[in-house]
Amino acid sequence: MQLYQYPKSNALFDRAAKVIPAGVPGHLGPAAGCFIPVSAYPIFCETAKGAHFWDVDGNRFIDYMCAYGPNILGYNHPEVDAAARAQMEKSNCTTVPSPLMIELAELLVDTVDSADWAMFAKNGGDVTNLAMLTARAATGRKKIIKFKGGYHGILPWMLDAGYPGVLLEDVENTITIPFNSIELFKRVLEEYRGDIAGVISTPYDHQAFYENHLPEPGFWNDVRQLCTANGIVLILDDVRCGFRLDVRGSDHYYGFRADLICFCKALANGYNISALCGDASLRPSISSVFATGSYWLSAVPIAAAIRCIEIMREINAPEVMKKTGEKFAEGLTEAARQHGFEFRVTGEKAMPFLTLGDDDSSVLLQEWVAEMVMRGVFLANHHNHFMNCAMGEEDLVYTFEAAHEAFEAVRKRHPEMYR
Amino acid sequence: MQLYQYPKSNALFDRAAKVIPAGVPGHLGPAAGCFIPVSAYPIFCETAKGAHFWDVDGNRFIDYMCAYGPNILGYNHPEVDAAARAQMEKSNCTTVPSPLMIELAELLVDTVDSADWAMFAKNGGDVTNLAMLTARAATGRKKIIKFKGGYHGILPWMLDAGYPGVLLEDVENTITIPFNSIELFKRVLEEYRGDIAGVISTPYDHQAFYENHLPEPGFWNDVRQLCTANGIVLILDDVRCGFRLDVRGSDHYYGFRADLICFCKALANGYNISALCGDASLRPSISSVFATGSYWLSAVPIAAAIRCIEIMREINAPEVMKKTGEKFAEGLTEAARQHGFEFRVTGEKAMPFLTLGDDDSSVLLQEWVAEMVMRGVFLANHHNHFMNCAMGEEDLVYTFEAAHEAFEAVRKRHPEMYR
Repeated sequence: MQLYQYPKSNALFDRAAKVIPAGVPGHLGPAAGCFIPVSAYPIFCETAKGAHFWDVDGNRFIDYMCAYGPNILGYNHPEVDAAARAQMEKSNCTTVPSPLMIELAELLVDTVDSADWAMFAKNGGDVTNLAMLTARAATGRKKIIKFKGGYHGILPWMLDAGYPGVLLEDVENTITIPFNSIELFKRVLEEYRGDIAGVISTPYDHQAFYENHLPEPGFWNDVRQLCTANGIVLILDDVRCGFRLDVRGSDHYYGFRADLICFCKALANGYNISALCGDASLRPSISSVFATGSYWLSAVPIAAAIRCIEIMREINAPEVMKKTGEKFAEGLTEAARQHGFEFRVTGEKAMPFLTLGDDDSSVLLQEWVAEMVMRGVFLANHHNHFMNCAMGEEDLVYTFEAAHEAFEAVRKRHPEMYR
Repeated sequence: MQLYQYPKSNALFDRAAKVIPAGVPGHLGPAAGCFIPVSAYPIFCETAKGAHFWDVDGNRFIDYMCAYGPNILGYNHPEVDAAARAQMEKSNCTTVPSPLMIELAELLVDTVDSADWAMFAKNGGDVTNLAMLTARAATGRKKIIKFKGGYHGILPWMLDAGYPGVLLEDVENTITIPFNSIELFKRVLEEYRGDIAGVISTPYDHQAFYENHLPEPGFWNDVRQLCTANGIVLILDDVRCGFRLDVRGSDHYYGFRADLICFCKALANGYNISALCGDASLRPSISSVFATGSYWLSAVPIAAAIRCIEIMREINAPEVMKKTGEKFAEGLTEAARQHGFEFRVTGEKAMPFLTLGDDDSSVLLQEWVAEMVMRGVFLANHHNHFMNCAMGEEDLVYTFEAAHEAFEAVRKRHPEMYR
């Protein structure tokens, strides 16, 4: 395969750096420290369709990052886009909302096991924050337990003191403990008896930069029981996993029922919406929390979300992505084996995190990922990947072919590291 | 005029209340306590075009709330929508961003006086929060001064302790003082010398439920000088006023230069985007702040923002809205006078706040506003209004005709209250 080059992306990045802090801010940008080596990556996208995007240099990529989650049915999905376009003809951001909002709430209540109601916002962090406020309002207590590595957004209370601008005061009511540590969880409940308003967690430990961990048997059952027994609101941050494990919610997938569940990303195939759903008992509390935003009830993303959820249900999207993810993991592991690498895939199959066992420093992984990207397979070395429903057999075949070449290229560069 | 009725809206609200907390949450909903009497208002929108929207019962409204700001060029503006649709064909929310992001940043830098750079988010509160974090990161200090009544979003630090879920700890580093109080501002600087990271304020006092107040002569000049002298970051929350007073920023309009300026609402005529712009000196600090969101670099709202700003500049949108707002204020004041009411219009002409001098309780105003709404003129009794560029002479003529009928109806109901 011909290795990609990025002259137009690089020239545009120089232009971007003049007027945008960090050039491309946030998790999509090279400044995130995630894209190593930066030179292997495209920086700007021209078009996207299905499982692929094309950069400004005309290179095509099979996109296993899926915009970090939103792309679940395929970029520019014709039916979702048609629903959005039809609503655009009527209205979008208006002084009073469209009744489509009711349809979406009804659809979520019908679809999601732990949803007796739904309300809508824009960021994942909007709804994790509303969930936290709801837990405090419902209990009259202050403290929130979060499981380590769960990414709940960028608001100060979700971060750690030490992030620029974040104060100790911002996080003094957040208690962070490792995922799966039920004994420590019990000790914290004991220590802060009567002070814990809520527990917030992702369905499994899918933190960046580390191998991901599924819940241990009984973990969620124990957490659920302890929350119920202590009057603690159990908040599921399903922003990243939502609709990729189970359309009924990732709590249902793992056999429990959250009190509040937060969705974003895959909810509308990239249209800008997030949702907080929850148990009937919390309706008075969420109604009391001050919550509003200029675009929160815009009708176009709501129309897109309705069509997206309908299709995800029709095709059983999680099952489709699980199967693709299984083949993805098997094919890459086999390619690695053939070239003498120990390849590890952790997390759920629809959201695989990749590591190389031969390499504690992750330098080999970074090099391999770079070789993949320069062959048109967009991977990340630091973050779980995302399957989508538009990925086909030919994408997997191409991916494995690229993987063979990429492992071979890394092996040639590091003969000393081979057994 | 025939008075409107809302059987379909009311039936839909009953359906909404089953699956959405508060039925319609947030500032767009009757539960906000703003729409008094609720029975006078439509609850759900079917279509919108230009200066008007039509509710689900087929009633047409001249919309002086403009979705609380976003509608600046007219709903479903053909050129803005065409730009959005063209970008939808290419890409929206993708793993790497579109180069359109650079064009928008360059356009803001070229347009806005205090913008040496720009970055993008989704809510107004996203960018006021980033501005706060930037001020703390830049100064290594904790405290933020805000002027009373400035609405900077729904995050805990922006609110007051006492809001459900908000703790004293959340607001202990926020110091609130009245707008225009330069002497008190000086005393606070003295008291907390070396502790103040930033000052956040709207360009003028446009708080809800109270008459609005413009900056007193010299106020902004003094604030600017004191911030500079004390190394304090001056943050302008231009979320509500931005592009309605001056396309170069409301700081330029009032003759000063903010260090950071926050835009949302009018930026893209209702497409979902907000922007933080600022001085070159703060680039390292904003670059250090952890800031990212799933949809933050989506290309469709960026395409809409570019076209919206171009048009606002071409037509000098603030001047258009100022003239409409002047006629609006004059016509209503005259109608009130003819019916023996003392009508007061405060704030800037493009964003008028309405009160009746005869009525400290605001009951008369509520009744008059209800009469206006039931005649197809959408006003609010608690909030500043918004002009847009699509409002025409015939809208004003209709508005004044409705005003005469509405004042007459109120007068008939309250003969005892007349001089």
